[in-house]
Amino acid sequence: MEIGIAGVGRIGKIHLENILQRFPDIDVTLVADPSEEAAAYVHEKNLNFSYNYEDIVGNKEVDAVIVCSPTNTHADFVIDAAKAGKHIFCEKPLDLSLGRVKEVLDMVHHSGVKLMLGFNRRFDPNFLKIKSMVSSGKIGDPQILKITSRDPGPPPISYVKVSGGLFMDMAIHDFDMARYIMNKEVAEVYAKGAVLVDKAIGDAGDIDSALTTLVFEDGTMANIDNSRKAVYGYDQRLEVFGAEGMLKADNNFPDNHQYYGTEGIHGSLPLNFFLERYTTSYLNEMDAFFKAIKNNAEMPVSGDDGLEAMKIALAAKISIRENRPVSLNEI
Amino acid sequence: MEIGIAGVGRIGKIHLENILQRFPDIDVTLVADPSEEAAAYVHEKNLNFSYNYEDIVGNKEVDAVIVCSPTNTHADFVIDAAKAGKHIFCEKPLDLSLGRVKEVLDMVHHSGVKLMLGFNRRFDPNFLKIKSMVSSGKIGDPQILKITSRDPGPPPISYVKVSGGLFMDMAIHDFDMARYIMNKEVAEVYAKGAVLVDKAIGDAGDIDSALTTLVFEDGTMANIDNSRKAVYGYDQRLEVFGAEGMLKADNNFPDNHQYYGTEGIHGSLPLNFFLERYTTSYLNEMDAFFKAIKNNAEMPVSGDDGLEAMKIALAAKISIRENRPVSLNEI
Amino acid sequence: MEIGIAGVGRIGKIHLENILQRFPDIDVTLVADPSEEAAAYVHEKNLNFSYNYEDIVGNKEVDAVIVCSPTNTHADFVIDAAKAGKHIFCEKPLDLSLGRVKEVLDMVHHSGVKLMLGFNRRFDPNFLKIKSMVSSGKIGDPQILKITSRDPGPPPISYVKVSGGLFMDMAIHDFDMARYIMNKEVAEVYAKGAVLVDKAIGDAGDIDSALTTLVFEDGTMANIDNSRKAVYGYDQRLEVFGAEGMLKADNNFPDNHQYYGTEGIHGSLPLNFFLERYTTSYLNEMDAFFKAIKNNAEMPVSGDDGLEAMKIALAAKISIRENRPVSLNEI
Amino acid sequence: MEIGIAGVGRIGKIHLENILQRFPDIDVTLVADPSEEAAAYVHEKNLNFSYNYEDIVGNKEVDAVIVCSPTNTHADFVIDAAKAGKHIFCEKPLDLSLGRVKEVLDMVHHSGVKLMLGFNRRFDPNFLKIKSMVSSGKIGDPQILKITSRDPGPPPISYVKVSGGLFMDMAIHDFDMARYIMNKEVAEVYAKGAVLVDKAIGDAGDIDSALTTLVFEDGTMANIDNSRKAVYGYDQRLEVFGAEGMLKADNNFPDNHQYYGTEGIHGSLPLNFFLERYTTSYLNEMDAFFKAIKNNAEMPVSGDDGLEAMKIALAAKISIRENRPVSLNEI
Repeated sequence: MEIGIAGVGRIGKIHLENILQRFPDIDVTLVADPSEEAAAYVHEKNLNFSYNYEDIVGNKEVDAVIVCSPTNTHADFVIDAAKAGKHIFCEKPLDLSLGRVKEVLDMVHHSGVKLMLGFNRRFDPNFLKIKSMVSSGKIGDPQILKITSRDPGPPPISYVKVSGGLFMDMAIHDFDMARYIMNKEVAEVYAKGAVLVDKAIGDAGDIDSALTTLVFEDGTMANIDNSRKAVYGYDQRLEVFGAEGMLKADNNFPDNHQYYGTEGIHGSLPLNFFLERYTTSYLNEMDAFFKAIKNNAEMPVSGDDGLEAMKIALAAKISIRENRPVSLNEI
Repeated sequence: MEIGIAGVGRIGKIHLENILQRFPDIDVTLVADPSEEAAAYVHEKNLNFSYNYEDIVGNKEVDAVIVCSPTNTHADFVIDAAKAGKHIFCEKPLDLSLGRVKEVLDMVHHSGVKLMLGFNRRFDPNFLKIKSMVSSGKIGDPQILKITSRDPGPPPISYVKVSGGLFMDMAIHDFDMARYIMNKEVAEVYAKGAVLVDKAIGDAGDIDSALTTLVFEDGTMANIDNSRKAVYGYDQRLEVFGAEGMLKADNNFPDNHQYYGTEGIHGSLPLNFFLERYTTSYLNEMDAFFKAIKNNAEMPVSGDDGLEAMKIALAAKISIRENRPVSLNEI
Repeated sequence: MEIGIAGVGRIGKIHLENILQRFPDIDVTLVADPSEEAAAYVHEKNLNFSYNYEDIVGNKEVDAVIVCSPTNTHADFVIDAAKAGKHIFCEKPLDLSLGRVKEVLDMVHHSGVKLMLGFNRRFDPNFLKIKSMVSSGKIGDPQILKITSRDPGPPPISYVKVSGGLFMDMAIHDFDMARYIMNKEVAEVYAKGAVLVDKAIGDAGDIDSALTTLVFEDGTMANIDNSRKAVYGYDQRLEVFGAEGMLKADNNFPDNHQYYGTEGIHGSLPLNFFLERYTTSYLNEMDAFFKAIKNNAEMPVSGDDGLEAMKIALAAKISIRENRPVSLNEI
Repeated sequence: MEIGIAGVGRIGKIHLENILQRFPDIDVTLVADPSEEAAAYVHEKNLNFSYNYEDIVGNKEVDAVIVCSPTNTHADFVIDAAKAGKHIFCEKPLDLSLGRVKEVLDMVHHSGVKLMLGFNRRFDPNFLKIKSMVSSGKIGDPQILKITSRDPGPPPISYVKVSGGLFMDMAIHDFDMARYIMNKEVAEVYAKGAVLVDKAIGDAGDIDSALTTLVFEDGTMANIDNSRKAVYGYDQRLEVFGAEGMLKADNNFPDNHQYYGTEGIHGSLPLNFFLERYTTSYLNEMDAFFKAIKNNAEMPVSGDDGLEAMKIALAAKISIRENRPVSLNEI
């Protein structure tokens, strides 16, 4: 299989390195990125490079594209790739506008190519284990899901301004996780937000802390708490409570030492951010993408999954603005 | 100090045994309870007994009363005890009617006696530790509190019907805990409930599962999840997240063994219900009550604490009924 | 049942308080202790008191005696009590001389009274759980036992000098635990000791640190490590490895909080010393003693158990002195 | 840097894959292995291949060799490589004969090339953390080290027969770890062994279970327990106790889920064997090897380290045979 990679910023590099190191039967035919830094990086790896994303779509050898360019380029690029008959892995979101996302998905659907969204956390070994145990009925009907999702520190204000806000940028992963673990659709959202970390985030029109209640179609519930700043590091946990038991997933740690001193027992902090915590999930998701293409199977994360998570994020934004529960039907 | 105990059902017996065993300088002058079973139990201990609660109030030797009689007797008894100048420890709630509670508190206030409400969980060693660390500033400003509070199994339907409902009967402890840990007043409540455990609970007009969001005056938040049935036992945990760190309290366990077998690593379930889990807290709260009387100090849990928790419970009930956030000002 | 208590120092007080608080059907007929401090303590409890241990043996009402007097009084007192037909609970050891212990046990045996030795750790909930799981075959044949047993700090040198040494005074509990968990007899002992904590302990002819290897009759093995000083508190753990699995028992803790700060994750130290760690085991062992008398059943810890642990301690002392493995047959 | 790899069995493949994937500046110039399977494997990777190990030594481009061929080829190959001026990474042991090892080390010493032994566990993140904390004085003087080292299942009897026995083949890693963590030399060894897992191992002249006591030059101590069969998987833990604290390292796990069911709390078993548990350590050790060459620095695991661990293993064998402590001076 031959692939093209659009964008080799932080996340694009992860995918590129993973593919080079772990997928010997995947050929990286072309990497495109408008930046000089990217050009140097790619040349050092002896790969073909272009400053123009569109060269990937125009390359007839390319079977599939990995889209890691900025969000505002996603929609156009995905539509072009689909028209060119190339399978697509795209980092979330497809676009910040719901209408535009629907257009893209319609287009992709008609083109017949496969599209996978980059909700990488689904492929984290801990969450995979929880998912598998819930699916196998270990806890009976899942009733209450609780997700903790906190970043070690806020992004730059410049990023905050174009991010789409905490729900669209950060919590959207948790909304997807909620649908994934519960295997049900969300019917209603109530969110409460606050600016507790940095006033500048509030000045930029966003929040930095949130508690969100999701109600599923059958009346079961989820709670998600988000913060842009956990001083002890990246905090990514969940627990799901069901009629027959409960499942928990903890953070991952760089080591498992324990130190017993005169002041107490001490251990290491969790792995600090997503590159460290989700190393395996990035690898697993790429593997899943290539396998789905090879086996002509359904993508494990579809464009509709992205759409649904986005609807929840939009409902959460309205909920905060109007201080009321918002039905997904309104979106 | 001489005390009288009104009611020696499940909780009254705990207090009586604790006092007899651990408080040698407290004399149990009279125990009252209308039941024959109680009479036999008290006679066996060679204590004075009456079938009539009012005999406690009428006994001039009695300095303080422990009120463990049914909820519907609390208000009258507390008022009579206050008029008789006796200090009062009363199991929650003072009454199921907010107006009546206010009357009782007014009366108690004017009488000058001390009143302590039985929010025993405040005295659990784990929660005490968390409280003390939050107070000492270990986590900076507390921003998000999460409480898990699940019973091992639902009470009988007959009890459900007179209990005041899940919020007034069960979650009220968690509402008090939220105020205690955060040391702030709740401004707004949003609750979502469901009948997921037993339809009969729904038929009785109650819910058996709930997710409640509390917003404090300063915009910080708490989430509480309740279930009437956790098959793995009594689940009583909390975590509080702040600007400078996070604190967690786990359940207590009957032992700490770990078994490594071919199927995994196994440990014991949490202590099964409140009598086992909160053994120490019951002892500590009685100690706190007697100490406050001896030292003429403020009670660690006041009548107003009961009132505030009750308001939150009432707001939660309205929130579910009307599916909207409810301001505490409305109550 | 009427009992007498000989000696109300630290451990005698524990037993007395436990009996007064938790065993309402046991009457404490007489307490004896030569000290003025003890006299005052006992009078305050309105119990009969004598300065002379022998008054207990001479009291016809007394059915059973609890021996908590200094070690050098144990043998004579136990013999007198046995002659007087009284059942005996005796703190370990019966005597520091093996020959004398054998005499006492012979005498007790012929008298027909029941004798229980105070190896209280057998009644700790964690070790009870391990014992029960080993007995039920959860790990198949136990092959390797590892015991960690460390004190928070060394006793005064004056005590060290009369204690019988680290093996006879401290490790003897672990030797008993090894026989209890493995349910086999020890055939050979190899011990290595060192003075790593305090030179004064070495000057007193003792060691403060030791590693002991026990070989059981069937070739299975145990390792015990002892230290007189763990700066982080009392460390009492074990693990037993078998053909079908492994079991571990950890320390107990005053609370289970976890604090996540910028420097790591922190928890409380273990309960600091035996009075706190073994609170429940002291209660359980007294219960077992009274029950065995009432039911005319075998004592759960016999005089022979004390003898066997003592032999292992003596073998360990020889092993260190002669730097060689010592067969129990030599003792 | 150009390297040659001698032997691509299980461990050789790990090193080869790690180098190809993670060390882009290291060129694999030649791989040699007498087997057809290896030939096919290497050709698939488009690398140069020879059936003859000696071709690596003869290749002038090769700067360094990775020796993963069978133990009985190590000594000759290392000597030849040293004579040819190539740096050497060699899996342990250099040879099963102490005299031969000394010859090889002498030869290597005179040649001036660098030699690193494959004690990969030194590079495990958990043990690295412990080592670093011990070195920085976190626990003061280390006094007692305890190592648990158990395999999930025994190797084939054919392997047992040529392995050099449990101490030389398996425990030698633990002996190295003991020297590494304690940073002291061993003065005396006492070992006790047994055949508890499989009689056939005993018939082959070996043991499958052992408890070993190490005494260091300064009187501090270590205990190591080994078993060839832990039904719950690969068990690799240690704890080191010192004057100022204690450090523990636990196993690694495939995930960190916890399941609360009606029977207890359950978690996953440890990673099953060395390829999974020590994935990172294999990578780290190769990195350390290349770095030491590039920086012309001392190798982090020297030939003498291999020699010392081997002496301890030989002393342990004598100790079991003669049932006595054996001084390292005897070896």
